[in-house]
Amino acid sequence: MNKYKLLLVVSLAAIIAMVAMTVSIAGKKNERGVINSSPVVKADGVEARNEVWREHFPRQYDSWKKTSENDKIIDMIKEKPQLAILWAGYGFAKDYNAPRGHFYALQSNQNTLRTGAPVDEKTGPMPTACWACKSPDVPRVMEEVGIEEYFTGKWAKYGDEIANSIGCADCHDSATANLTISRPYLRVALEYNGVDLDSITHQDMRSLVCAQCHSEYYFKKTKWTDKQGVEKTAAIVTFPWEGKMTAEDMENYYNDREFKDWTHKISKTPMLKAQHPGYEIYKTGIHARRNVACADCHMPYKQEGSVKFTDHHIRSPLENIANTCLTCHRESEQELKDVVNRKLERKEQLMEITMDNIAKAHLEAGKAWELGATQSDMSPIQADIRSSQWTWDYSIASHGSFYHAPEETLRLLSVANEKAQQARLKLVRVLAKYGAIDYMAPDFSTKEKAQKLAGVPFEKLAAEKMKFKNTLLKAWTEAAIANDKLVPSIREGMSDNVSYPKN
Amino acid sequence: MNKYKLLLVVSLAAIIAMVAMTVSIAGKKNERGVINSSPVVKADGVEARNEVWREHFPRQYDSWKKTSENDKIIDMIKEKPQLAILWAGYGFAKDYNAPRGHFYALQSNQNTLRTGAPVDEKTGPMPTACWACKSPDVPRVMEEVGIEEYFTGKWAKYGDEIANSIGCADCHDSATANLTISRPYLRVALEYNGVDLDSITHQDMRSLVCAQCHSEYYFKKTKWTDKQGVEKTAAIVTFPWEGKMTAEDMENYYNDREFKDWTHKISKTPMLKAQHPGYEIYKTGIHARRNVACADCHMPYKQEGSVKFTDHHIRSPLENIANTCLTCHRESEQELKDVVNRKLERKEQLMEITMDNIAKAHLEAGKAWELGATQSDMSPIQADIRSSQWTWDYSIASHGSFYHAPEETLRLLSVANEKAQQARLKLVRVLAKYGAIDYMAPDFSTKEKAQKLAGVPFEKLAAEKMKFKNTLLKAWTEAAIANDKLVPSIREGMSDNVSYPKN
Repeated sequence: MNKYKLLLVVSLAAIIAMVAMTVSIAGKKNERGVINSSPVVKADGVEARNEVWREHFPRQYDSWKKTSENDKIIDMIKEKPQLAILWAGYGFAKDYNAPRGHFYALQSNQNTLRTGAPVDEKTGPMPTACWACKSPDVPRVMEEVGIEEYFTGKWAKYGDEIANSIGCADCHDSATANLTISRPYLRVALEYNGVDLDSITHQDMRSLVCAQCHSEYYFKKTKWTDKQGVEKTAAIVTFPWEGKMTAEDMENYYNDREFKDWTHKISKTPMLKAQHPGYEIYKTGIHARRNVACADCHMPYKQEGSVKFTDHHIRSPLENIANTCLTCHRESEQELKDVVNRKLERKEQLMEITMDNIAKAHLEAGKAWELGATQSDMSPIQADIRSSQWTWDYSIASHGSFYHAPEETLRLLSVANEKAQQARLKLVRVLAKYGAIDYMAPDFSTKEKAQKLAGVPFEKLAAEKMKFKNTLLKAWTEAAIANDKLVPSIREGMSDNVSYPKN
Repeated sequence: MNKYKLLLVVSLAAIIAMVAMTVSIAGKKNERGVINSSPVVKADGVEARNEVWREHFPRQYDSWKKTSENDKIIDMIKEKPQLAILWAGYGFAKDYNAPRGHFYALQSNQNTLRTGAPVDEKTGPMPTACWACKSPDVPRVMEEVGIEEYFTGKWAKYGDEIANSIGCADCHDSATANLTISRPYLRVALEYNGVDLDSITHQDMRSLVCAQCHSEYYFKKTKWTDKQGVEKTAAIVTFPWEGKMTAEDMENYYNDREFKDWTHKISKTPMLKAQHPGYEIYKTGIHARRNVACADCHMPYKQEGSVKFTDHHIRSPLENIANTCLTCHRESEQELKDVVNRKLERKEQLMEITMDNIAKAHLEAGKAWELGATQSDMSPIQADIRSSQWTWDYSIASHGSFYHAPEETLRLLSVANEKAQQARLKLVRVLAKYGAIDYMAPDFSTKEKAQKLAGVPFEKLAAEKMKFKNTLLKAWTEAAIANDKLVPSIREGMSDNVSYPKN
């Protein structure tokens, strides 16, 4: 009898296990079904609220929200005071931090001294274009008001509209959840270069959605007439992509148009600011040649239970080597880190040399002007400085160029330094002409010293910013919540970080 | 009956085929046996005649002999006239060609204007050390006379002994045919760096036999006393390998010893000549990190019949992509070539800039001396020039550094150029002090102009060389044949190429 009892128990256990497994499989199948279907988040227009997407894409949302972990503010002007000299007269000399996670992109943009302290929708130094890459509200507003209208007016014009930080609708279509190019400037640039937008592969899209923002651009002044017949001028974000998209090509593009981002406060040079040509630099590297997409390393696939999904915790692959590098490279994590670190060291070495020489060239040029140098003395020098700084900035302004394309980055740094030195060789002769052959550039080795030389009234700017934050910015947030454009819970527990650590 | 006939014919054919196969297998087995055994080429000492090795290693010999196909003489001073300025006062300014195959190494050494035109064993500009990497007769003579004696005296001392071009016994032990380090200077350097010579792996040997010659070295003056009690001074080939074997480490090594290869004729700078630090540069690149040996790419395995052997036709892997790169990299040949060409372009760009600035620094320094500059004016400038040229030379003097370690090569070129420009910035001020602030370096854009500036009496040197070739060199060859040190057939059909194309 004991034998039969045992048999019965075992059989029952097996049946229970099988039922449990079947239920589990069915459950997972359901789960997969829900996940693999493409729910309509919003049938028409753009759903900019990431929390609404969360209902359908909880894993993607949760991993995206982890970009909030990258919250450290690193004051780059404190780290590299030369930057204040290089950007004298331009917003970046006021305040420039290492980037935080996408979660903070909007906050950083509102906090930085570069966007100033408007008191109403028509004041402040920057145009609407400065929101362009910070929020999925941007494509929403563009759809609502039209592209030209969007790019017309001051940054403060859309303070109560641009409410959500970089998220779902920046890269995904609200109706289909497919990857999509939400920004018109990338569409225009690709079409200009002969790309058929309807034929882009999914793999290419996994880089191009990033390229919408991680690219070089400028604000192109464009006259247009609105429906009421009013003549307006827009500052439209435009990619200078013609030909091969190298640093040299883009420099020629800007030179052909006699374009400048600003006039340097010390050397009076008509300057170019490279933005963040991450995509263009990446394209010159070996990973791009092998068709490895941005997402392959920065958003690898992840398994949770039965579900494989894309990890939206966008970050350096070095923080996640096992799921990124190691899917292709059979090395130890330490070995990979060592190789990458050596690349970084090489870039740092050449970057320091180059920044030092460009900063000195600006200061020496400033001295030459002060002593009475003429435009004809200075024009060849200014041409060298403009070219040098553009090339330097282009080579390092984007994330991880030293890794994405180490050889191109080192080449550009070397060319940039050569041009800075050509300027300095000419400057000795001009300074000699005006009796100052032994002039040595003053010390710019701390943020305070460098910003003083650059004429940045840091305390004043910071005080104004604080006032803006306590008044207009608060009003914007309240309005966005009242108008159902922002789900307030997302801001809970988010510290009101200023982006400019006290000097 | 027809049926039986057919069966018989088929059976017979099958039997014949089987017998033939058995014979063939046995034959191949024998062949493999012969090849895989290690015949004793010479039980004691070094067999320097490649033709004697041929009897046992016909495939290796035949493929080695194909290095004779790389016979084109490319006059590098014609290609890059700046070189004559950079090396003014040193042998390389006289004559410097792109290297030909190993088959020609000895001939190139005898032909170059750098080894001059001795009239007997005690004349001529160069020491015995100049044969050190050119022939398997070198380890033979070293064994016969001792290392210190070998490195004592003039190059012409061993003209009738050094008779065979780079070949078997440079890398293989004559008794066992195993890979061996035949040159004492590599043994010394490795031991100094803590390497146990008996524990070197076969894979490492496949690079180290190359490193015997493709490395940085200098001639270390060393006093010694021979058996007869005579005091002598040897110029011993020595590797400056201490610490990490970087360009910076070796520069410190030489500076610590106040060593100079020569004094520059124009700038009067105590100069360093980088030799060909191919092994050291390769060690900083990714292929070395992955333990890919020199031989893996330059001497890949080859199949002939049933025999797999190492292809001794040493050459660029780009001429043999299918058997080299493609064994690891799954790309098209064209794709690989494109990637390599882009690396070359980047190096060429930075190299041209750097050479131009160093050459100008020498000429500007020459002008400063001419105008009365003092040593204290010039010392900081000379320090920059010495460091700059060392760094430049180190980065490009070896074969294919741009490929073996593209990032290190670009970094070094950039550092070299920065130092040249630092020298030039100082030079403007010194020139100004002596009334020549607007001095511009003269044109050195052709070999003739550059050699004239460098004070090279090309026609005279060439005439003396021709006389040497028609007298002493002929006598050396005749003596080597008479003394059974050279198998004359190897020289048959070998043109008496001069290595210096007419100006």
